[in-house]
Amino acid sequence: MQDALLALTRYWTDRGCLVVQPFNTEVGAGTLNPATVLRVLGPEPWRVAYVEPSVRPDDARYGENPNRLQTHTQFQVILKPDPGNPQELYLGSLAALGIDVRAHDVRFVEDNWASPALGAWGLGWEVWLDGLEITQFTYFQQAGGLTLDPVSVEITYGVERIMMALQQVDHFKKIAYAPGISYGEAFGQAEYEMSRYYLDDADVAANQRLFEDYAAEARRMLDAGLPVPAHTLVLKCSHTFNVLDARGAISTTERARAFGRMRELAREVAALWAQRREELGHPLGTVSAPPAAALPERLPEVTAPATLLFEIGTEELPPAEVSRTVTAVREAVTAKLAASRLAHGEVTVHGTPRRIVVLVAEVAPREPDAERTVRGPRASAAYDAEGQPTRAALGFARGQGVDVGELTRIDVDGVEYVGLVRTDVGRGAVEVLSGLLAEVVGELRADKNMRWNDAKLSFSRPIRWLLALLGDTPVPVVVSSLASGTTTRVHRTAEAPEIEVSTADGYLDLLARHEIDADAAHRRQQIVAGAGMLAAQVGGTVDAEAEAALVDEVTNLVEWPTPVLGGFAPDYLELPAEILTTVMRKHQRYLPVRDAQGALLPHFVAVANGACDEDVVRAGNEAVLRARYEDAAFFWRADLATPLARMKAGLTKLTFAERLGSMADRAERIAELASVLADRVELTETDRATLTRAGELAKFDLGSQMVIELSSLAGVMAREYARRAGEPEAVATALFEMELPRGGGDALPTTTPGALLALADRFDLLVGLFGIGANPTGRSDPFGLRRAALGVVSILRAFPGLRAITLDAALSSAAARLADRGVDVPANALATAREFIVRRYEQQLLDAGHDHRFVNAVLPLADAPADADQAVAELTDLAGDAEFAELVAALQRVRRIVPASTLADYDPAVLAEPAEQALHRAFAEVRDALGGRRVGLAEFVAAARPLVVPVNEFFDQVLVMAEDETVRAARLGLLASVRDLAAGILDWPALGTSLTG
Amino acid sequence: MQDALLALTRYWTDRGCLVVQPFNTEVGAGTLNPATVLRVLGPEPWRVAYVEPSVRPDDARYGENPNRLQTHTQFQVILKPDPGNPQELYLGSLAALGIDVRAHDVRFVEDNWASPALGAWGLGWEVWLDGLEITQFTYFQQAGGLTLDPVSVEITYGVERIMMALQQVDHFKKIAYAPGISYGEAFGQAEYEMSRYYLDDADVAANQRLFEDYAAEARRMLDAGLPVPAHTLVLKCSHTFNVLDARGAISTTERARAFGRMRELAREVAALWAQRREELGHPLGTVSAPPAAALPERLPEVTAPATLLFEIGTEELPPAEVSRTVTAVREAVTAKLAASRLAHGEVTVHGTPRRIVVLVAEVAPREPDAERTVRGPRASAAYDAEGQPTRAALGFARGQGVDVGELTRIDVDGVEYVGLVRTDVGRGAVEVLSGLLAEVVGELRADKNMRWNDAKLSFSRPIRWLLALLGDTPVPVVVSSLASGTTTRVHRTAEAPEIEVSTADGYLDLLARHEIDADAAHRRQQIVAGAGMLAAQVGGTVDAEAEAALVDEVTNLVEWPTPVLGGFAPDYLELPAEILTTVMRKHQRYLPVRDAQGALLPHFVAVANGACDEDVVRAGNEAVLRARYEDAAFFWRADLATPLARMKAGLTKLTFAERLGSMADRAERIAELASVLADRVELTETDRATLTRAGELAKFDLGSQMVIELSSLAGVMAREYARRAGEPEAVATALFEMELPRGGGDALPTTTPGALLALADRFDLLVGLFGIGANPTGRSDPFGLRRAALGVVSILRAFPGLRAITLDAALSSAAARLADRGVDVPANALATAREFIVRRYEQQLLDAGHDHRFVNAVLPLADAPADADQAVAELTDLAGDAEFAELVAALQRVRRIVPASTLADYDPAVLAEPAEQALHRAFAEVRDALGGRRVGLAEFVAAARPLVVPVNEFFDQVLVMAEDETVRAARLGLLASVRDLAAGILDWPALGTSLTG
Repeated sequence: MQDALLALTRYWTDRGCLVVQPFNTEVGAGTLNPATVLRVLGPEPWRVAYVEPSVRPDDARYGENPNRLQTHTQFQVILKPDPGNPQELYLGSLAALGIDVRAHDVRFVEDNWASPALGAWGLGWEVWLDGLEITQFTYFQQAGGLTLDPVSVEITYGVERIMMALQQVDHFKKIAYAPGISYGEAFGQAEYEMSRYYLDDADVAANQRLFEDYAAEARRMLDAGLPVPAHTLVLKCSHTFNVLDARGAISTTERARAFGRMRELAREVAALWAQRREELGHPLGTVSAPPAAALPERLPEVTAPATLLFEIGTEELPPAEVSRTVTAVREAVTAKLAASRLAHGEVTVHGTPRRIVVLVAEVAPREPDAERTVRGPRASAAYDAEGQPTRAALGFARGQGVDVGELTRIDVDGVEYVGLVRTDVGRGAVEVLSGLLAEVVGELRADKNMRWNDAKLSFSRPIRWLLALLGDTPVPVVVSSLASGTTTRVHRTAEAPEIEVSTADGYLDLLARHEIDADAAHRRQQIVAGAGMLAAQVGGTVDAEAEAALVDEVTNLVEWPTPVLGGFAPDYLELPAEILTTVMRKHQRYLPVRDAQGALLPHFVAVANGACDEDVVRAGNEAVLRARYEDAAFFWRADLATPLARMKAGLTKLTFAERLGSMADRAERIAELASVLADRVELTETDRATLTRAGELAKFDLGSQMVIELSSLAGVMAREYARRAGEPEAVATALFEMELPRGGGDALPTTTPGALLALADRFDLLVGLFGIGANPTGRSDPFGLRRAALGVVSILRAFPGLRAITLDAALSSAAARLADRGVDVPANALATAREFIVRRYEQQLLDAGHDHRFVNAVLPLADAPADADQAVAELTDLAGDAEFAELVAALQRVRRIVPASTLADYDPAVLAEPAEQALHRAFAEVRDALGGRRVGLAEFVAAARPLVVPVNEFFDQVLVMAEDETVRAARLGLLASVRDLAAGILDWPALGTSLTG
Repeated sequence: MQDALLALTRYWTDRGCLVVQPFNTEVGAGTLNPATVLRVLGPEPWRVAYVEPSVRPDDARYGENPNRLQTHTQFQVILKPDPGNPQELYLGSLAALGIDVRAHDVRFVEDNWASPALGAWGLGWEVWLDGLEITQFTYFQQAGGLTLDPVSVEITYGVERIMMALQQVDHFKKIAYAPGISYGEAFGQAEYEMSRYYLDDADVAANQRLFEDYAAEARRMLDAGLPVPAHTLVLKCSHTFNVLDARGAISTTERARAFGRMRELAREVAALWAQRREELGHPLGTVSAPPAAALPERLPEVTAPATLLFEIGTEELPPAEVSRTVTAVREAVTAKLAASRLAHGEVTVHGTPRRIVVLVAEVAPREPDAERTVRGPRASAAYDAEGQPTRAALGFARGQGVDVGELTRIDVDGVEYVGLVRTDVGRGAVEVLSGLLAEVVGELRADKNMRWNDAKLSFSRPIRWLLALLGDTPVPVVVSSLASGTTTRVHRTAEAPEIEVSTADGYLDLLARHEIDADAAHRRQQIVAGAGMLAAQVGGTVDAEAEAALVDEVTNLVEWPTPVLGGFAPDYLELPAEILTTVMRKHQRYLPVRDAQGALLPHFVAVANGACDEDVVRAGNEAVLRARYEDAAFFWRADLATPLARMKAGLTKLTFAERLGSMADRAERIAELASVLADRVELTETDRATLTRAGELAKFDLGSQMVIELSSLAGVMAREYARRAGEPEAVATALFEMELPRGGGDALPTTTPGALLALADRFDLLVGLFGIGANPTGRSDPFGLRRAALGVVSILRAFPGLRAITLDAALSSAAARLADRGVDVPANALATAREFIVRRYEQQLLDAGHDHRFVNAVLPLADAPADADQAVAELTDLAGDAEFAELVAALQRVRRIVPASTLADYDPAVLAEPAEQALHRAFAEVRDALGGRRVGLAEFVAAARPLVVPVNEFFDQVLVMAEDETVRAARLGLLASVRDLAAGILDWPALGTSLTG
């Protein structure tokens, strides 16, 4: 291992990196060394490489866990500015470590890094070696709250992991550290003893004092204008915090406060450092962005129609961005071509993680010329009596730069003007495309954008090359510092990673010859087919339907899918299948292999990128999965040995959200709320008992090691552990179902206790977060409030029996739970939450294809979505019914004339006209028929039909606005009574005047 | 610089060293990294190399001082066990750094390392590169209070210094750290800001709390049995202490207490670590010492007298040990040869730092045989009447293993015995020498001894080879793991560093051909002559007389003196000459060059070892001296800009000794005591004023940067700075003289104020240290109490005018000063101190050749040494005087008969005998003549002569022990009166009975 560290050091110093020493106070990561976190600020260049033993008290495991250490070794590289080819440099470093990058499957898998505590974020990748994450590779965009310009490339190697893979050992202690001495022999005792300190023996009170003293010292140093000691003190503060955290001594409020303090200090350190460097005149100089590229003075011309090939070469895009960018580029090219006069054939756009390929067939060599008429003054004003041009005509001609004799007469809507017919000469295709394609590149935007070593561009990942050919003719395209060429880049491990492209035609075949499949649909097909064949070899199948999302993702993780079948020890099948598949999918992007009955087989399919040594890749991926399963099995056994109550007790240590207490507080509120909600509905005694017990255990699995590790297994593990702890099956089910639905398309609870808990969970979340003002924004919904609201609606719609649990009631009850705990939710926050839920319901209805008028009409009923569901269904049924249309029209007539403030009260004795009296009688009849009950739409419509004729006759024969006030009041009162009879059934105005309109 | 670190790392890993990272909490030195301080404990092997940024807040200088940094870079190597050739390995590492060790003068200069705070010590060297200390090289003997077995070799490179030398730059900031970036650019800002924190801005109260918390945590971890976290916490404790110290916030008592705590914690950490490793079963194995060497079964024989050559090859001995060992070996060889029967010629022993060469001329090939008579029973008992052997004879014969017939008759003092004449066959010379020389080696002992990779040997430095030849015949000598051979080692940089030696004759010439001069006298002569010649080149001289001690030292620092003349910028001559010469001598062992008037010239002579590139060596040494002078000039200017009062105020920060307060307290006591002592003597007003002012300033220069740096300049700088601050010359002189004498042979004060201060200084030291029980032991006198006592005596003898300042009075007054400050000195401690001083005086007299009886006789007067001096002088004068002898004899007669308890009182009326009455009259006459005055010996003798005859007649004629009690009492009373008349003049019994005897 020490040779590896030396090899990396040598490799990077040979590439201009300074070497510094690990920092001499404990840091959690190499990023925190001032050689990174301070030096990335400001305009000075910086290249550095160093080893950083990174201390994470929380990862202390007494040296027992094979993959987890309280101090692990990072090798950290900072390249500032981005040298333009950092991935290639990085791959060179792997080769320097003795890794044959052609035999292995090395991939850059999207991973975005953010440290709110440091006010820092960046975009980049985890680098995978045969599925093992060995490096974090990040384009640092912001640090200490400051936007970084230039951007730095940060490469962080996880040295123990790399060593375990290279040496093929299954425990860090077995790594050969130096000749004749293992990692365990060199550091095992320290690992054990420091674990003891961090987990068991550190004195809490002492460390609390240390934290305060360091924070105060850091504050003083900031005030003294000394960022370097301030930073050191912040690090000491942070380490002390980590020690306290590992000791389980950080309460929710303390954590929030401590983070806030450290974040603020870190931001000030950054600002002060940047200021100090500026005062010092940036001693290391300043980086200048690469110069803008320039177009050649003359653009080439083509003479015959030809195919356009335009390739945008990028570093590995996130899978979702591949598809999104393909679409965006197709639309942009199509629109921009349409805005030109250039004739062309079909526009095709393909994408892989590293390229967007645009092909446009039959592009004409030029735009045709076009005539354009310019209108001048009226002919009558342009020539005097003698037919001589007036000053107006002369002025117009001069303005157009032509002789007055060139003006002609033109007719516009029968009026004669002088004018000029101008010819716009069509531009050459190259000229058109050069500008158009530059715009396409310049306008590329992703969901999350970053900058690199370019002065102006911004995209999901760096754009590194452009290739543009019109037939055989290069099309110069210039965007900021990028200029198009006639080469493309194939696999970085190819003999010649950059190849010349002579013509646009047959480009996809050319790529295919270099093992790049630009066609995503084809790649997908290859994956599905390949995985299926491999699975068949072991008598299994891969369910491509069920794994569609994963297959889509993998399709855009590779340029040339190479499915590889791997296996794992059948022993692991004793673990719940959800654990195994979660690890495969989420962590490794492996496709699970199942037998005919759908049961897991001890196999998986990994999809490597391009040619590789499949045995090497298989072995690597198998080792990764084994390590992950070993971890999981470790957690599984540990959890099974832990009483549920102990896991539940662990929730006190988990923060929920600032001001809302710990996860234990939240679980307690959920249990209470579920019980209160249950009081509103009919519940069997059995269900009540189930609810009570499940409430006691609510969310206990968040305290299990498995869920701490694999949070997506929340609920699943609750069910597993509850069952194995001997809880009734109904309780286990309720605990599982309270987490449902976990996302769009997920199952809903099937039992009432499960549904009640799931509702309580979501109402607590919504009221709590809206209550503290943590409303989701367009871009950000960190607590998943949209998902929670959709869950509420879905459950209430699925359980009409729970319709007594209205939104208003549930939200108020949830607020009461919080109020009991000192958190007062403002009324307007409750209203906002309610509106937020109703909006989700509205969207669900619209998405289901309901008429938007019907949807609007039933929204007032959405307080009980089951009622609204019924109303919308009935509305839809009634939509073609002429009588219903008449009723609606009549009611709308009533509503239009009666002021909203008019009360539904009148003295029948005042009503003298027959039509008045008829309506009065009809109203009374319908009112009595309804009997004051709350009825659905259909029943109302059936009962109210007798009103239609009297209403219409009333309006035909009676003047509502009688001069006699008493009479007028009685007439309005009568109409208001009719109005109110229909109130609450629907939002009638929303239906509009004509149901067929 | 980073390449150098990588080169060192690579070099040592190639030699089996593990690499660890710098420790991730601040350490003051690489030694404190657990990879050293813990791993050197116990029997496990360990080889490690690492970089260690070493933080010394006290060395913070804002990055301004060219050679001093708050964080400097150490490269640390531990080799455990000693590989047997660590120096050669080390030289290889210099070559790996690109240092041409043949061109440069690389030397190993005695430097012993001890850290009481760590309970650690070791012996070794500073390694000099052309006079620059670049490495600390130590054989670690003890750590954490535990004796190390095996011993570790610790090599600590000072990387910045090496880089400054290699890159020939004069400020650390100018070091090229990496391509295109200097040390200052990389670390300058941190150096400045951390200096600010350490020196100016760290919060004292906060750091005090941190210290307490860390100490308490360390204590808890020890109790929990976790040495690794405990050690980390001790380091944090220690760093916090250093911060407080740099902030000037550590009072004397705090320092003592803090050191005590840290020491105790460090010891417990070490013990606990050792125990834990034992419990773990020493996972890295255990080191076994090299096996004992064995003698061949048959030793060779020689047939003719031949020269014996025996060489003991060592690593560089301290200069003093070279001479001491030469003497010891000469005596041992001579004595052991004498104890054998081997005839031989002259024994010559030579020494250099790396070898002790024994040459014995004309060694006989064998011991002669020798006859030995064994006595049996008396002849009369051995044979019966028939002449047959009795059982006694038979038994004797059997006991001797001979036939009874072989017995003979022998005569012993006229009695006849049976006996046996046995022949002891002489051993061959090789056999004799083999054993004898092995004993010589095994018995080698130095002042300070160490162990290395040998199971049994112990000496000043490791013994690495033995060479033994008798003429051409190898003499096998075996001591522990060492076996003699027929090779020697010459310069390590020689083409062949090990050469074969075929014969003993001409060995010194052989060595000389390899540029090794074994003859110290000759080396010395070469140095003196060479230095003189070089000095003459620049019109100067080297005063070999004045520099005798330095020349002696240099003589034993090299095997082949190569004097090199160097120069320095004449500007530095503006500094006081003492500064310049102190730096040259103490730090660099350079000989100063002076002009005819004795004024310094800007030149020096360095003495390199063996052949080298003199230009390179000159340039290197000049650079070192320039850096040192630059430092000194920096201090000089800084001090001159500092008011004396401010320097004096700095004394509060300097610890004197535990319980005795700071140096400021001590200076205050000295001033008071000098004033009190002055009251006992006559003082002019001028002297009194001088004394007062000098007392106020006493020791202020200890607070100057110069003296903090060069402590031997204490006093000298006081005089310089006082003069330049405008103090009267007398005050300046007194401040200088108070430090005199600084050692044996140094000048004494010449002025009364200077003498009074010097006395006060030493009495305070003696009383204080004896008062707290810090008595010097045979081996240890850390506070220089012997020197202080000698100073007291010398000054009192030189200033008879101060005889009123008796030891008793001065010691009591000193004790009173301490008592005023809460330190009570026990009476027996005062008595011990007094006795200690008197012993020094006694030794001075004996060393001056005085008769030991006279010395003993005057010791009772030593309370005022000037009185005792006078007495001994008079005694010496009187020694040949017959009358004096008679007087002494008479007085001794009196003293012998009178019991000590008898009072000098009698009733003259009782005395009836004429002889009684005559003595009574003579006594009264003498008594009256002396008149009760305190008189000196000579006057007493003159006055007392009339007593001789009466005393003798009294004894001849009077029976003292008369039966009549009254008479007896009167006679004894008369004699007691005579006795007391002489009391206090001398210790009469000490003179013995016969002055001529």
